[in-house]
Amino acid sequence: MEQGQRSGSRPAEPGPCLSSPCGADQAASVSLLSAAGAEPGSRTLAVAAVLPAGGCGERMGVPTPKQFCPVLERPLISYTLQAMERACWIKDIIVVVTGENMEAMENIIKKYKHKRISLVEAGVTRHRSIFNGLKALADNQPNSRLSKPEVVIIHDAVRPFFEEDILLKVVTAAKEHGCSDYDLEFGTECLQLALKYCHIKAKLVEGSPDLWKVTYKRDLYAAESIIKERISQEICIVMDTKENKEHIGHLLEEVLKTELNHIHVRSQALYNAGSDIQHINLEQCCNFVCVNVKEPDFQETQKLMSMLEESNFSILYSIVVVSVHFLDFKLVSPSQKMESLMWIREFAKKMKKRKILLYGLLINYSQDEQKLQESLRQGAIIIAALIEERNSALIGQLLVA
Amino acid sequence: MEQGQRSGSRPAEPGPCLSSPCGADQAASVSLLSAAGAEPGSRTLAVAAVLPAGGCGERMGVPTPKQFCPVLERPLISYTLQAMERACWIKDIIVVVTGENMEAMENIIKKYKHKRISLVEAGVTRHRSIFNGLKALADNQPNSRLSKPEVVIIHDAVRPFFEEDILLKVVTAAKEHGCSDYDLEFGTECLQLALKYCHIKAKLVEGSPDLWKVTYKRDLYAAESIIKERISQEICIVMDTKENKEHIGHLLEEVLKTELNHIHVRSQALYNAGSDIQHINLEQCCNFVCVNVKEPDFQETQKLMSMLEESNFSILYSIVVVSVHFLDFKLVSPSQKMESLMWIREFAKKMKKRKILLYGLLINYSQDEQKLQESLRQGAIIIAALIEERNSALIGQLLVA
Repeated sequence: MEQGQRSGSRPAEPGPCLSSPCGADQAASVSLLSAAGAEPGSRTLAVAAVLPAGGCGERMGVPTPKQFCPVLERPLISYTLQAMERACWIKDIIVVVTGENMEAMENIIKKYKHKRISLVEAGVTRHRSIFNGLKALADNQPNSRLSKPEVVIIHDAVRPFFEEDILLKVVTAAKEHGCSDYDLEFGTECLQLALKYCHIKAKLVEGSPDLWKVTYKRDLYAAESIIKERISQEICIVMDTKENKEHIGHLLEEVLKTELNHIHVRSQALYNAGSDIQHINLEQCCNFVCVNVKEPDFQETQKLMSMLEESNFSILYSIVVVSVHFLDFKLVSPSQKMESLMWIREFAKKMKKRKILLYGLLINYSQDEQKLQESLRQGAIIIAALIEERNSALIGQLLVA
Repeated sequence: MEQGQRSGSRPAEPGPCLSSPCGADQAASVSLLSAAGAEPGSRTLAVAAVLPAGGCGERMGVPTPKQFCPVLERPLISYTLQAMERACWIKDIIVVVTGENMEAMENIIKKYKHKRISLVEAGVTRHRSIFNGLKALADNQPNSRLSKPEVVIIHDAVRPFFEEDILLKVVTAAKEHGCSDYDLEFGTECLQLALKYCHIKAKLVEGSPDLWKVTYKRDLYAAESIIKERISQEICIVMDTKENKEHIGHLLEEVLKTELNHIHVRSQALYNAGSDIQHINLEQCCNFVCVNVKEPDFQETQKLMSMLEESNFSILYSIVVVSVHFLDFKLVSPSQKMESLMWIREFAKKMKKRKILLYGLLINYSQDEQKLQESLRQGAIIIAALIEERNSALIGQLLVA
C-alpha cells in the first residue's frame, strides 16, 4: 500500500529508475483508483497506452526524426517509454513506428531494456497510425498476447516529461465520466478516433506545463538540461567506515550539504558489500563520491567500481564517480601524490565503456582549519560541476582542491 | 559598401560582438535599402526601436522577471539589446521598464556598455507600455535628445534571437508598403496602436523560427545552450612564432581542425603584440588555446593574458584560455612537470574576476608518432569540452592528455 501511495505522488518523468517496482502492480492500481473515488477493492482496470512515433520531425532541421534524436546519448523516445513504464498499472505500451524505423526501435527497446512494449507499423497519417495502434489492442487475434483494454492512453512519443498523476487523471476520468459531447467538441481528433473505431470511451483532461512537446532543436537542448538537472539532485558519498564519526568523509559530507543545498547528499558505508548494492539500487542514485583513506590508494573506489560494474546502474544514465583523496599539501606536494594516482586514467578509460564516468579529486588536508574548510568547499564546487556537466572528455583527470 | 553587405548577411543575434562597427552606418543603411528596392543614394530612413520589457514573467515560475533572468551570468535582456545594437542604422532603442526595475536596467546598460538606449517607464498594460515608448519618440520636447523617427520597430525584450535581415525586412516593408487593411486584420494589436497614436505606418512581416520568445524556464535552458554553442564556434590558437613551420603548435592546430570539424580553428602569432590585439578584437573570438614552448613555462600564456586583461573582451562573454604545455612523459613524469605549473591555480583565480577562464593542459609529446597523435587527439577533445562547458569551477586545473 505504501508502494502504491508513493507511486501516486512520484513523477513518472524520466528519472533514474532502472526497473519499475512492478511487484506492487496490483496494490498500486487499486489504491490509486481508490484515491480517485473508486470503491476500495474494486477490480483493476485494464489500461494500455498507444504512442504514435511515426513522425519525420521536419521542423527540427535535422535528418533524424525527433523521437530518435539523442539526449544525453540516448534516443528521446526511450525517455518517454521510461516515464510510461513507471506507471506499473499500464499493461501494454504500443509504439507506432514507420517500417523503416522498426529495426532501430527494436534495438532501442533491447538496449535500454524497456518492458511491456509492442511495436505496430505506422500508417500514412498520424490518425492512421493511432488507428493501427488501437486496432492491435482491439483485435483478439489468436497469436496476439494483447487483450482489449478498457482504457487507452494516447500519448505523443516526443513528450518525455509527464507525471504519473496525469496518467491517473486521464484513466480515472475515462472510467468515471465516459465520453461527453463537451469533450469531443473541445478535444482533439484523437478522441474522436478512439471513440469511432474502438468502442472505447474518452475524455479531455487538462495537462500540466510539463507535458510540452519536443518540436524544435532548441527543445532538445531544453530536454537535455532538464534531465541533467534532475539526475544531479542526489549525491551518494561512499566510505569504508560506519561507526567512525571522525572519518574525514563526514567532514566532506557536511561541506557538501552546506555548499550544495539544492542537492540531496547522503552517505553510505562500504564495508557491507551485499546490502549496499541492494540499497543503492533502490535509491536510484547516479552520482557517487568515494572517499579513499586506506592504502593502497583507490581501494575504496575500486570496491565501488566493481559493484557498479556488476550492476546495471548505467544502462539509462551515465554514472558519475568522483574518487576523493586527501593529502596535506604542506607535507607532500600534490604532484607527488598524483604520481601514484596516475593509473586512474587507464581505469577511467575502461569504465567509460560501461558509461561510468570516473574522475579523481585531490583535497588539501591542511592542519590549518580555515585552509581545510576552503579546500573542502573548493572540492564541493568541483564535485558539483562534474556531476552537473557529466562530461566524458574529462574522465580520468586528477583535479586539485 | 562591403561593410554594408556584410552587415546585411550577418545575424544580429547575440554573438561575441563588443562594439558595433558603426563607423559604416551610412553605407550600411544606404546599400541595404538599395538591395531592398529603394533608389541608390536615397536619403537614410530614421529608424527607432521600442522594446517592451515591463512583464513580470509569471509563467516562468521564478521570482525574477524573465527579461532579467541570467543566461551565462548575464541578464536575458542584455542579449536582446546586443542583437538590436548590431543594426547600426537603428538610431534610438527605447526600453520600457517598470519603475521598480528602472535602476536595475540602468545598471545593466552601464555594466554591459550598451549604447543608444533610452529608458521609459512602463504603463499598467503592455499596450500602455508600448504607447509610452512611442510617445517618447513622437514628442519633440526641448530636453529630449530623441527625434521622431519614420519607422519604429516594436520588439519583445524576451526574444533575444533574431537576424539583422528581419529588422531590415520590417523597415523596408514599412517604407514601401505602408499599412494595409490586410496587415491590420492579421497583425497584432501593436500594429493598431502604432497606427492610431503615432501616425506611423506599420506592416506585418513574416518572422523566422529564431524569433521565439523566452516564456518558460525550459526556454532559458534552451537560450543558454544556443548561446554556448554559438560562442564555441571559433578557436584562436596563439603561439610565439610565425615562420617556424615545424612548431608543435601547428601539429596541434592540424589535429584540432580534424577532430573539431564543426569549429573554425585559426592560429595567431604572438610576437607582434600591437597588431594582434587589433586583429583579435575584429575577429571577436571567445576561445583561445595558447601553446607554450619557451622557458620559463607560461611565458606565452602570460603575454596573452595581459593582452586580454587590457582589452574589454570579456564584458559580454567569458573568455576561455587553455594554456597548453608539451612534455615527453617517457622522459619526465607528468607529475614533475605539474609541480612547476602549479601556480596556474592562483593565476586562474585572479583572472576569473575578469571573466577570463584559464585552464592548463599537459600533452604527451611522445617520440612515438602514433602515441603523439593520440595525445594530440585527446588534447583536442579536452579543449573542445572546456570551451563548450565554460565551467568556472574547473579553472586553474591541470589536465593531462
